[in-house]
Amino acid sequence: MATVCPTLPWSPAGIFLLLLSLGFVKGGRLLVIPQDGSHWLSMRAVVEKLSEKGHEIVVLAPETNLLLKESEHYKRKTYAVPYTKEELHQGFSKFSKHHFDKVSLFDMALAEYRNNMYIINLFFYNCNSLLQNREMVRYLEESKFDALFTDPALPCGVILAEYLSIPSVYFFRGFPCSLEHAICKSPNPVSYVPRCYTSYTDHMTFSQRVMNLLVNSLETPLFKELYTKYQDIASKFLQREVHLPTLYRNGSIWLLRYDFVFEYPRPVMPNMVFIGGINCEKGKNLSQEFESIVNASGEHGFVVFSLGSMVSEIPMKKAQQFAEAFGTIPQTILWRYTGQPPPNLANNTKLIKWLPQNDLLAHPKARAFITHGGSHGIYEGICNGVPMVLMPLFGDQMDNAKRIESRGAGVTLNVLDMTSKDLSAALNTVIYDKSYKENIMRLSALHLDRPIHPLDLAVHWIEFVMRHKGAPHLRPAAHDLNWIQYHSLDVIAFLLAVVLVAMFISWKCCLFCCRKCFCKKGRVSKSSKTKAQ
Amino acid sequence: MATVCPTLPWSPAGIFLLLLSLGFVKGGRLLVIPQDGSHWLSMRAVVEKLSEKGHEIVVLAPETNLLLKESEHYKRKTYAVPYTKEELHQGFSKFSKHHFDKVSLFDMALAEYRNNMYIINLFFYNCNSLLQNREMVRYLEESKFDALFTDPALPCGVILAEYLSIPSVYFFRGFPCSLEHAICKSPNPVSYVPRCYTSYTDHMTFSQRVMNLLVNSLETPLFKELYTKYQDIASKFLQREVHLPTLYRNGSIWLLRYDFVFEYPRPVMPNMVFIGGINCEKGKNLSQEFESIVNASGEHGFVVFSLGSMVSEIPMKKAQQFAEAFGTIPQTILWRYTGQPPPNLANNTKLIKWLPQNDLLAHPKARAFITHGGSHGIYEGICNGVPMVLMPLFGDQMDNAKRIESRGAGVTLNVLDMTSKDLSAALNTVIYDKSYKENIMRLSALHLDRPIHPLDLAVHWIEFVMRHKGAPHLRPAAHDLNWIQYHSLDVIAFLLAVVLVAMFISWKCCLFCCRKCFCKKGRVSKSSKTKAQ
Repeated sequence: MATVCPTLPWSPAGIFLLLLSLGFVKGGRLLVIPQDGSHWLSMRAVVEKLSEKGHEIVVLAPETNLLLKESEHYKRKTYAVPYTKEELHQGFSKFSKHHFDKVSLFDMALAEYRNNMYIINLFFYNCNSLLQNREMVRYLEESKFDALFTDPALPCGVILAEYLSIPSVYFFRGFPCSLEHAICKSPNPVSYVPRCYTSYTDHMTFSQRVMNLLVNSLETPLFKELYTKYQDIASKFLQREVHLPTLYRNGSIWLLRYDFVFEYPRPVMPNMVFIGGINCEKGKNLSQEFESIVNASGEHGFVVFSLGSMVSEIPMKKAQQFAEAFGTIPQTILWRYTGQPPPNLANNTKLIKWLPQNDLLAHPKARAFITHGGSHGIYEGICNGVPMVLMPLFGDQMDNAKRIESRGAGVTLNVLDMTSKDLSAALNTVIYDKSYKENIMRLSALHLDRPIHPLDLAVHWIEFVMRHKGAPHLRPAAHDLNWIQYHSLDVIAFLLAVVLVAMFISWKCCLFCCRKCFCKKGRVSKSSKTKAQ
Repeated sequence: MATVCPTLPWSPAGIFLLLLSLGFVKGGRLLVIPQDGSHWLSMRAVVEKLSEKGHEIVVLAPETNLLLKESEHYKRKTYAVPYTKEELHQGFSKFSKHHFDKVSLFDMALAEYRNNMYIINLFFYNCNSLLQNREMVRYLEESKFDALFTDPALPCGVILAEYLSIPSVYFFRGFPCSLEHAICKSPNPVSYVPRCYTSYTDHMTFSQRVMNLLVNSLETPLFKELYTKYQDIASKFLQREVHLPTLYRNGSIWLLRYDFVFEYPRPVMPNMVFIGGINCEKGKNLSQEFESIVNASGEHGFVVFSLGSMVSEIPMKKAQQFAEAFGTIPQTILWRYTGQPPPNLANNTKLIKWLPQNDLLAHPKARAFITHGGSHGIYEGICNGVPMVLMPLFGDQMDNAKRIESRGAGVTLNVLDMTSKDLSAALNTVIYDKSYKENIMRLSALHLDRPIHPLDLAVHWIEFVMRHKGAPHLRPAAHDLNWIQYHSLDVIAFLLAVVLVAMFISWKCCLFCCRKCFCKKGRVSKSSKTKAQ
């Protein structure tokens, strides 16, 4: 019987690996410019795998950071930044607290904008410090990397790839406002591709389509607003006028954390590689502490509750609401929470500072997953087939929640407006209404049935770019056309002009012929009249 | 060290294979409706691999056919057709002879249209016979297949999938006129995606873009012209009004024989899977007969020459031209030819009825490949890194040739106009100008560097569709919109109307205010005048 393992014996990858193992060739040199925070988690897995395959990896990190730790898998090079660890933590804590303030829709939009700007400004300091660090830049120039691997949500890596003239691979979840499609010249029809922050599905009503088009028209100004500062430092650093989207277009491969069981199907480009679910590993055995809690949950099983690493504290009133709701259901609740415990905590609720989230979700007794709707958590929910109660807080979480809800695999709650009864009802729905479990199991089966694991796919494409110095054969010629040419407006105008000129000439010819005929007739009749006289 | 073999231990595919090998589950049941001729060659490889994996396969074939032979890998079910083997061969021979008639451009286009219609009509008889064969249709109904695998260049399989209510997978090179993109709602910008028969690259001049747009406007009428007959029999067979593109849209997965080292990068859809080069196997050892010819070629090596299976005879004058050219170069020529040998054949030229084309191209002494530019041959040339001299004859061959030429990996000749000197010069160019070898080796390296072999990828997606009864999660919502909605014309009209109404109301308000002011002023001045009097 044939094997499902791809037949690679005589492919360059196979030969490369053979030569590497025999010591004939050495691995490549990769420069990694990550983004701090949860974005780094799945990127790190790719870096580790690349390191295991013999590549030499340098990760650039700001001296003050959250998750960019040292590792045996890479050489971490740090650079000084103008803020302390306390200021960083304080900033993030302030950022997370805001999400529980009850405000008007306008204020919420303003807060969302401010949040984005806060993060962007924070990381801007990093980028500015890095580009001004002459010693570090000289080290990078001398190191002769084969490729650069970066999260392009913020363009520091994009700028450095241009400066160092090395090909780059982007690792990405989605820009603010899906601008990756505009940059890649991937058509983005507003009629069925919902825009960010709308929480629409791919089947929109007329009024939703109107709103979607209006939101779409805000994307380019928003991009300008968010990235103007970067354009300025890029111009200064590269010592020439820089157009940021043009720099972005030099990315050889976009590794996108998309999977179409979760995202809505839409046009894509050949240099986009889909690695959604890359973070979801096979569930490992639980530690004794968790194993005993899980076993004690009995036939009712347990519920996993986490609002993500960005939310460490919740207002007491809200925490009490949660606790009240949990007291009404028979399942054990494992709640990841570092704040002050609410006084009305029921016996079935365990507050824990850190959860092995994926391993818990992989346990057969996991009945539901209460999540803020971050993409990492959602993919873990899909992977392990656990129905979700979603409490989106900021960024793309509202849209993520809507996607899961529209597939009948979860229930979304507004964390600000909901009551404890709402939460209790939502939990009962996803646990006892069989359709939720069936739908998430169907999504899970589709998601996991892939020809190659997303991690292997990501590693392949980074090595591809290192081996071939980019992937120019995947660059669409659309990048060489201006807006008018791309939309064929010049061609349409020309053809219209031809038609109009042809019509005008035909009209003039007709007129000329008619005049000739009538004049002749007129003259004839005149002369005959004269004769008759 | 990690392995490049994808990690599939707990994926449904892995579990399925394990259970299959343990005898717990049986393979699926697949119905195959192929198209006769060279299209079948790579499809057969997929069918054989699926059979090796334990699936039960039934291939439907017309009683009179060219290549749809019996095999241990599948059960071949034949149905009667209203023509004999002699008529079929005669038809194809007439078809191939036409390509060497020197005619005007208009006549050439007409001949191309007639050729397409000839093939389409021939296969139409097959389809009609199959759908009218009540016994066969009853057998298909009773067989309860899990999926249908078809070449959708002609829609018989598409119609049967609808009738049998089973999901389908398409295996495809490209419609006449790339209508797969229109059917899949994959955007197809005329500004940089060259249309069929234009022989343009993705970088077009203004006049080429004008022509490309005009050719594009012929695609829909051509589709109607080619497939109206099928639409009629589909309506009769399904006993309802049928819209053929809508039937086509039910295809779950399009396995497209594309690779972007050969095709130009362009927007695609998530249900398109790219398996270009699927036909290219690792070169096997040559038989003693060929080995001795090849070894005797010495340091100069040899050239492989084939105009494909559709061309068995060449006008004697043309054959003499070829022979004359071959006499001027030091390489040995292996010429696949079944016609009468030209009298001026030089000693270095061997006429052979059948060539192990791929194995010869894989030999290190292969210096050049003279081909008609069929996609199978071109992929074998790319795979093995052999520069090409292209003599396109019909169909997509002109476009294929242009693609290879535009990448600096081959030279195109017009088979009707060329002289023996042209051929001799072209061969010397691709053999002795190093850039051709370098370019084809670069394309070859890019093409072969893939995370999974196209054959494994094709097999995976067919099994996927069998396992999950289709791939509805990859179906874009665009299929549920009409033309106006898809292009947001209703939304734009509405917003324009709102703007116009708003402007009209503002104008009226201004007018009203002005009148009020002026009237008052007028009245005031009138009354003051009266007072003054």
